[in-house]
Amino acid sequence: MNTYETIVTRRAVRHFTDRPLPDEVLTRILEAGRWAGSAKNTQPWHFIVVRSPETRDRLAACGRYAGHLRGAAVAVVIVTGPGRWAALDTGRAAQNMMLAAWAEGVGSCIAALHNEACARAVLGVPEDKQIQLAISFGYPDPNAPATIEGWPLEKVLASVGRRPLEEMVHWEGW
Amino acid sequence: MNTYETIVTRRAVRHFTDRPLPDEVLTRILEAGRWAGSAKNTQPWHFIVVRSPETRDRLAACGRYAGHLRGAAVAVVIVTGPGRWAALDTGRAAQNMMLAAWAEGVGSCIAALHNEACARAVLGVPEDKQIQLAISFGYPDPNAPATIEGWPLEKVLASVGRRPLEEMVHWEGW
Repeated sequence: MNTYETIVTRRAVRHFTDRPLPDEVLTRILEAGRWAGSAKNTQPWHFIVVRSPETRDRLAACGRYAGHLRGAAVAVVIVTGPGRWAALDTGRAAQNMMLAAWAEGVGSCIAALHNEACARAVLGVPEDKQIQLAISFGYPDPNAPATIEGWPLEKVLASVGRRPLEEMVHWEGW
Repeated sequence: MNTYETIVTRRAVRHFTDRPLPDEVLTRILEAGRWAGSAKNTQPWHFIVVRSPETRDRLAACGRYAGHLRGAAVAVVIVTGPGRWAALDTGRAAQNMMLAAWAEGVGSCIAALHNEACARAVLGVPEDKQIQLAISFGYPDPNAPATIEGWPLEKVLASVGRRPLEEMVHWEGW
C-alpha cells in the first residue's frame, strides 16, 4: 500500500484477534508517533505502552466507549503537558501511529478516557500532566460485529462513512 | 516511499518554489483530510482552500510565524465547530493532509493564526466556528534558508530534531 492508500483506506478497528503485536511492529508505531511535528517542535508527548491485560481492563473502565482496550494486543496512552496546542499535537502523533499500524495490517481505535482521574490512578500519571487519550492496537478480527459497546454503530457515531468533499471544502473563503 | 518512510521522513517545509500545485494533487490532499477519523465520526471540519496570493498575504499577517503562507502554492485553513475534541480531530486531519502531500514531494507547514479575529475577517468565517490553523503546501525550495521569520530555527523552535524514544516511552505505567 502506498501512503495515500493507507490514509484513505484506514478505518477504526475495535475488535481484534489474539495474535500478539511483534516488538518490531510496536517500535515502528512508536517511532511514527515520535516523528510527528508539533507546535514549535515542543514534542509534548509521553507514550505509555500497556500490554498487561489487567491494566487494559482497568483502563477500559475509565471511558464510556473504551471497551475495545480489553481485546487489544497493546494500548498506547498519550500524555502531554498542558498547553494551547497539546490536543492538536496529540492528534498528529496519534494519526501517525495509527497509519503506521494500518500499513502493516494492524488495526487501531482511539478511546477517550472520560474519567481522567480513573486513568490517572491506573497509570500513576502525575497531576501536572494531561491524559489525552488511549489507542488500541491489534490485528483486526475478520468476524467483528458492527457494534460499539453492544450498540449498533449508528447509535454511537454521528454518521457512518464520510461526508462528501463538496460539503467540507470552501474555495478562497467561507 | 512506503507509509512508514513517509511518516518518519516528513519535515516542516516553510520555503517553496513557484511551481503550482496540480489540481489532482490538491484533491488527494483534501481527500486525505476528509478520510481522517474523528470523535464519534462527527467530521467537524471545513477546509478553506486559498490559492489567491492576496488572501494568503493577508492571512500571513494574522499569525506570528505565518509568513510561509505567502510563498506557498496553496493554503488550507481548517475550521471546525466548537467541541471538546475539535483540536484533536484537527490534528488528525492536518497530519493526513501533510503526509499525503509529502508522499508526492509536496512540503507543508502549519501556521497558527494567533489573531483569530484577523483570520475571521479575511476569510469571512462565521462567529460560531473556530479557526484552528492554516497549512502551507508547495514544492520545497532546495535553497531554503534555515530560518523562521528571519530568525535561526533554534531561536523559534524548542529543539531541532526529535527527542529519543526512550525519553518519550513509559512501559506499563508512568
